[in-house]
Amino acid sequence: MRFDEAYSGKVFIMSRPTFEESKAVIYGMPMDWTVSFRPGSRFGPNRIREASIGLEEYSPYMDKHMEEVAYFDAGDMPLPFGNPQRSIEEIYSYVKRLLEQEKFPLGLGGEHLVSWPIFQAMYEKYPDLKIIHIDAHADLREEYEGEKLSHSTPIRKACELIGPENVYSFGIRSGMREEFQYAKDSGMYMARYEVAKPLAEVLPSLAGQSVYVTTDIDVLDPAFAPGTGTAEAGGISSKELLEAIQLIANSDINVVGADLVEVAPNYDPTEQTTIAASKFVREMLLGWVK
Amino acid sequence: MRFDEAYSGKVFIMSRPTFEESKAVIYGMPMDWTVSFRPGSRFGPNRIREASIGLEEYSPYMDKHMEEVAYFDAGDMPLPFGNPQRSIEEIYSYVKRLLEQEKFPLGLGGEHLVSWPIFQAMYEKYPDLKIIHIDAHADLREEYEGEKLSHSTPIRKACELIGPENVYSFGIRSGMREEFQYAKDSGMYMARYEVAKPLAEVLPSLAGQSVYVTTDIDVLDPAFAPGTGTAEAGGISSKELLEAIQLIANSDINVVGADLVEVAPNYDPTEQTTIAASKFVREMLLGWVK
Amino acid sequence: MRFDEAYSGKVFIMSRPTFEESKAVIYGMPMDWTVSFRPGSRFGPNRIREASIGLEEYSPYMDKHMEEVAYFDAGDMPLPFGNPQRSIEEIYSYVKRLLEQEKFPLGLGGEHLVSWPIFQAMYEKYPDLKIIHIDAHADLREEYEGEKLSHSTPIRKACELIGPENVYSFGIRSGMREEFQYAKDSGMYMARYEVAKPLAEVLPSLAGQSVYVTTDIDVLDPAFAPGTGTAEAGGISSKELLEAIQLIANSDINVVGADLVEVAPNYDPTEQTTIAASKFVREMLLGWVK
Amino acid sequence: MRFDEAYSGKVFIMSRPTFEESKAVIYGMPMDWTVSFRPGSRFGPNRIREASIGLEEYSPYMDKHMEEVAYFDAGDMPLPFGNPQRSIEEIYSYVKRLLEQEKFPLGLGGEHLVSWPIFQAMYEKYPDLKIIHIDAHADLREEYEGEKLSHSTPIRKACELIGPENVYSFGIRSGMREEFQYAKDSGMYMARYEVAKPLAEVLPSLAGQSVYVTTDIDVLDPAFAPGTGTAEAGGISSKELLEAIQLIANSDINVVGADLVEVAPNYDPTEQTTIAASKFVREMLLGWVK
Amino acid sequence: MRFDEAYSGKVFIMSRPTFEESKAVIYGMPMDWTVSFRPGSRFGPNRIREASIGLEEYSPYMDKHMEEVAYFDAGDMPLPFGNPQRSIEEIYSYVKRLLEQEKFPLGLGGEHLVSWPIFQAMYEKYPDLKIIHIDAHADLREEYEGEKLSHSTPIRKACELIGPENVYSFGIRSGMREEFQYAKDSGMYMARYEVAKPLAEVLPSLAGQSVYVTTDIDVLDPAFAPGTGTAEAGGISSKELLEAIQLIANSDINVVGADLVEVAPNYDPTEQTTIAASKFVREMLLGWVK
Amino acid sequence: MRFDEAYSGKVFIMSRPTFEESKAVIYGMPMDWTVSFRPGSRFGPNRIREASIGLEEYSPYMDKHMEEVAYFDAGDMPLPFGNPQRSIEEIYSYVKRLLEQEKFPLGLGGEHLVSWPIFQAMYEKYPDLKIIHIDAHADLREEYEGEKLSHSTPIRKACELIGPENVYSFGIRSGMREEFQYAKDSGMYMARYEVAKPLAEVLPSLAGQSVYVTTDIDVLDPAFAPGTGTAEAGGISSKELLEAIQLIANSDINVVGADLVEVAPNYDPTEQTTIAASKFVREMLLGWVK
Repeated sequence: MRFDEAYSGKVFIMSRPTFEESKAVIYGMPMDWTVSFRPGSRFGPNRIREASIGLEEYSPYMDKHMEEVAYFDAGDMPLPFGNPQRSIEEIYSYVKRLLEQEKFPLGLGGEHLVSWPIFQAMYEKYPDLKIIHIDAHADLREEYEGEKLSHSTPIRKACELIGPENVYSFGIRSGMREEFQYAKDSGMYMARYEVAKPLAEVLPSLAGQSVYVTTDIDVLDPAFAPGTGTAEAGGISSKELLEAIQLIANSDINVVGADLVEVAPNYDPTEQTTIAASKFVREMLLGWVK
Repeated sequence: MRFDEAYSGKVFIMSRPTFEESKAVIYGMPMDWTVSFRPGSRFGPNRIREASIGLEEYSPYMDKHMEEVAYFDAGDMPLPFGNPQRSIEEIYSYVKRLLEQEKFPLGLGGEHLVSWPIFQAMYEKYPDLKIIHIDAHADLREEYEGEKLSHSTPIRKACELIGPENVYSFGIRSGMREEFQYAKDSGMYMARYEVAKPLAEVLPSLAGQSVYVTTDIDVLDPAFAPGTGTAEAGGISSKELLEAIQLIANSDINVVGADLVEVAPNYDPTEQTTIAASKFVREMLLGWVK
Repeated sequence: MRFDEAYSGKVFIMSRPTFEESKAVIYGMPMDWTVSFRPGSRFGPNRIREASIGLEEYSPYMDKHMEEVAYFDAGDMPLPFGNPQRSIEEIYSYVKRLLEQEKFPLGLGGEHLVSWPIFQAMYEKYPDLKIIHIDAHADLREEYEGEKLSHSTPIRKACELIGPENVYSFGIRSGMREEFQYAKDSGMYMARYEVAKPLAEVLPSLAGQSVYVTTDIDVLDPAFAPGTGTAEAGGISSKELLEAIQLIANSDINVVGADLVEVAPNYDPTEQTTIAASKFVREMLLGWVK
Repeated sequence: MRFDEAYSGKVFIMSRPTFEESKAVIYGMPMDWTVSFRPGSRFGPNRIREASIGLEEYSPYMDKHMEEVAYFDAGDMPLPFGNPQRSIEEIYSYVKRLLEQEKFPLGLGGEHLVSWPIFQAMYEKYPDLKIIHIDAHADLREEYEGEKLSHSTPIRKACELIGPENVYSFGIRSGMREEFQYAKDSGMYMARYEVAKPLAEVLPSLAGQSVYVTTDIDVLDPAFAPGTGTAEAGGISSKELLEAIQLIANSDINVVGADLVEVAPNYDPTEQTTIAASKFVREMLLGWVK
Repeated sequence: MRFDEAYSGKVFIMSRPTFEESKAVIYGMPMDWTVSFRPGSRFGPNRIREASIGLEEYSPYMDKHMEEVAYFDAGDMPLPFGNPQRSIEEIYSYVKRLLEQEKFPLGLGGEHLVSWPIFQAMYEKYPDLKIIHIDAHADLREEYEGEKLSHSTPIRKACELIGPENVYSFGIRSGMREEFQYAKDSGMYMARYEVAKPLAEVLPSLAGQSVYVTTDIDVLDPAFAPGTGTAEAGGISSKELLEAIQLIANSDINVVGADLVEVAPNYDPTEQTTIAASKFVREMLLGWVK
Repeated sequence: MRFDEAYSGKVFIMSRPTFEESKAVIYGMPMDWTVSFRPGSRFGPNRIREASIGLEEYSPYMDKHMEEVAYFDAGDMPLPFGNPQRSIEEIYSYVKRLLEQEKFPLGLGGEHLVSWPIFQAMYEKYPDLKIIHIDAHADLREEYEGEKLSHSTPIRKACELIGPENVYSFGIRSGMREEFQYAKDSGMYMARYEVAKPLAEVLPSLAGQSVYVTTDIDVLDPAFAPGTGTAEAGGISSKELLEAIQLIANSDINVVGADLVEVAPNYDPTEQTTIAASKFVREMLLGWVK
């Protein structure tokens, strides 16, 4: 053992030692500047890494071992405190560079607004991009309290960017009337309350497509993920989310990137939210990176 | 903005400014004097109000906005500490006055004993009253440790008041043998373990009736509502309770009042119990006040 | 009331006053020396006892009152700190003596390694012993970090002791590839993810057999039992575990002993884990001790 | 080891096995029926016992080992829920019987009202009784919200019973103006904010007297004892309270009984309050029981 | 009792019913947009109000009852999420209007940056303004991560606004070398580590002056106030802060306004931080509003 | 920014990128196998690192910036679970190698037993070694429950290794009578209850000597460090420990290594223990590494 090999618990387990040899890159976006109710998701990425120590390296769901997927945990981006505009620019250029180097970006939030610059970078590389959005909230607002850059707007902006017909939302159980109306009128796909069943129905129609998957941990019922900023009762179980990840893994779609956002560990002294989140990250790595 | 308009977080969101213009009245009963195991529900009403800040004002379940229902949050009643008898009298006369002014009473407990004086006041106004009771516990004891006024007795007292055949219990999974025996012998309706399915079966037979609905938060599994005094494993999910509220809203019964009791926030550092409870209150307001 | 009758909250409720008059014996094994991720199960037994105060003495699931089963709570064994080998020897000889006196042993862990010496003692008394194992983890490792005595190995050791064809695992969702491979190759029975449904299928084939049942609380999803050392997302609900206990109670197998392990109360400030665990213990007592 | 010797963690460590052979008796009074702000002290006695496991049996402060004092932990009295009047009667007759058998009563609360019936029983045995009262609150109210039996009144009642000139309060930093006025006018002794220094001054004048000492844990700053119902900032340190216990032990007064009240463990997830309380109990046993 | 008189727990206790009749105004600034380490002070003001229910209305420190000071709790200002610039403008104009109506402003943070616009408004009314600053942190940075508007800069900006010779800092134990250097070079007053002793020395020289007092709760050691964003070990006790408030009350300075900032209740499950903060607010009201 | 420069929060802040260029080395020993009461210190080192993000890089106590001391955070040693003997051997050989390379070892525990192999390695390099021991507990047992390798024995073993006259203990307030007797009889130095004052008296006599300093976080009162396994009421404040670190820094002794042990973060949801510990580490680095 060399002294600098002694590290443990600081990167997601089984991270490769160098960026170069990896296919996928885990990166944290510790930003919660626009969160209205309960901030704290800036601590999400590091606590997910810490919880990963408790993970088994083999997944019986995927019948795959973490050695079989080469990924590198690049740590958290330094983001300018309290400045959403500049933070978004940083994320955008970071992901652009990841894509230039042919990496699969697996981002950890932070608030959901972090997905917006990722969508932009992905769309420039994949002009036929589809987005699968798994969340309790529609996130279809045009603005929130006068701000267009908010954790309530990223899916609306996605619709405007790639066309609402290319956006598929699952599990939605909260939003303004205008958001549900927009979902109906615009032609986007929205499944309320459930995830696995509607996903199983939709996935065949996306076969062969380039798809980015963005998952807000609050799609889970607060019983399964109390550590989040805007917990919303009436959600799905961890079991259903694991099933959804498996459905995507077993489908014929081409996942080109993914994120998991809104883990706010301070609201959950039991640590079950980060423990569950680290398992979802493992499953995404094993099932979606090809 | 005037200075006295600046209030926030002190009343249930979207409360109308005056009592007069409202159809329904939210009122707190901060009493837990007879709780045997883990007290603390006296803090329930205010924490439910606080959590309401995180609610969306529109409900996709009911397709209705909180502006469409006029209600007033009247705050917590001052109740005499440690004195169940006098507290019950206070609640009784408070609800009597609400009913005289044709308000829909939506009470927040407090321990379940608070429902007993409400039943009395409701029954005097609606002689054909039915009671829907959603709870983990039968609450059918004749007395508890020698006391007739206890959080374990209100449904028994209800049966004696309005006749057991007019009481419908759902979700029951705990009680003495005598309570289950009484349920069988007396002719009251009792569904064990489940809520939504038996409710769907029973509701048609109650069409057109005046019904008071009392819900004990502990009907939920502790996973979904750890913040309660007598948590009982093996309960229903938040999803099922939301479904039950919807079933009642879509039925032909005439809901004349309701309460939600036994939220004890101190046992739940994740705050998920109050977050869920505030959503249930929103759904009751939107679905049941007509 | 005599002064020494005033005790409360120190033994599992309704424990008989003497060892002699009891059929079953509850005993604690406060050991967590080999726990790799989050220790603390040494406090499990006493907190389960404490939580038992909140239990109803009658079970509607079993239609039985705790007076109908004679059991004695013998407290926690004194175990040598940090010494797995000697702790195992202590447990072995303790259970041997219980069996000599024809008691039904109901053990409370402690980490899962405590079950290994119990298996040995049981097997010596019941040479045709079968084991039902309800758990999130396969626990089939040959060794863990070089140690054969580990909380990850007891079921492997059980297979070697009584033959893999006599071991039935349920609810498994975590393990090394080698463990799942061993399960397939060895001829043991393993049901993944689910408990109640496969149990209902398997039980008839075990009719008339002597069966020991070992339950790791982490078979539950962390939502239902956050207070455990190696919480694993995607588990079953408390409702399903209660159903499993009932299935066994109603089957024709001969339960000869049982344990409930890995309750680590410090990770669960809501106390829901110990509250649920004490209910499972009640159901095991009422349903399995005959 | 016999099976019934295996108990641990259920009584205060080093409790003698029988009542008869003991000089002092530890008894719990799990009552918090009149607590206005944050109830929960009913759980205090058992959690103090549980925390006693972490204590060293020898005290360097007293240079004494717990073997040198014979005491018996009699557990918690069963008290009628929510009924202060009957609870007080139970405590009174319990302590009477302890005194008849020449035991030193060391009571664990529960709310401070539990001290009132103890004062009565003590006074009947010791007509020259003095009371040392260590507390953040004056507890000198005539009534609280119309109730004479309240956790805010016991010291006033003590003054009326034994004469204000026989009551000595220390550490007081909260009360109504009327209470501070009463303290001045009545001739009782009251030291504000501090405990050890004024105690050192007063003790010599009490030499040879029979003194009962009642200590409310909230005399400590909430930093040192957050687990209490009416935490009051600006208090003393644990060090100062240990010093006070030592001053009394080294004085020439005759301590005839004592209590420690208002430990409410649920407000303190760090458990430091019960850990500190169990140490104070050890010091009282070693220093005051002669 | 009228229905709209039933409110409780929503305003600081003893708040007058109308703005007009009050001398002082309590107002909340729920802003934590620029907090780098642990956000959450946006919830401070409401939790301080909630904790005020537990306060005694009379202060033995000041020998004064809360009836003797007329104040109005105006609730929390609505501030634009994540936008420090606009939030600052809102606070500025709000305080300007308070001062125009001759109110004593008593502000509750929120992060320390909220004090900056208050300083501006105060200085316009009191051109000879002095500032007493009680804090663990120097807050003298010119900018933080490129931002001039940060919770680390308000005292530097104050120095630039009213002249460093008019700023008095107490309790400082954290900052950059440049900040301590600036303190030395600029001629401002800075007392390290301690508050009460240096304050007693400085106050006489400020006799007759108009002084604004800004207090950051983190001047307390984390033992006394764990609920804050940038807890810093080695601080003062609650007792010393109470003494400091009293020293100011008894001095000849003219306090013209005050604030208490950085209470972040989510980091403190014991609630001792808000309990202490509500007491400090009471003492400021009773001692400083004349 | 390169991708592999993006790390944050995984090493103690300001760690140099390579081992070679550093003078001091921070290393974690995540071991708590022999802890009797409340395990969990294995998580201490990583949480101290995480909390270091909140530290200011400059210390006003030392008037020094962290850039001025070259240190490398080598992460946690992998230690064999549940095996004290092998863990001790690993630590011994690790520290030997650090010393061979002329590094200043700054170890983070883990339980106090980790200091024993360090003492051995230090003594081999410095035959005139003195040990300063700051702790609540004497740790002078010959064995604990039959085990010589226990968290209660390291100082006894140190006395036997380097001679009791070379061991100086401070702050001791808990132990067996035999331990205090040994301290008296053996000729070692022991100061009870206090640290700073006796340290100031002793330090001059140690001028010019090679001294290893071992600090157990539980020397602090639980109010200041609730996150530890065997919290002991009546301890010193964070302020006094900071003063002690400064006294050593300003003395003429030659500190040759140090450790900080027994931080168990799970018992402290406020995180104040790790926040304070990270500050103590900063002060040790700045004041002791020369």
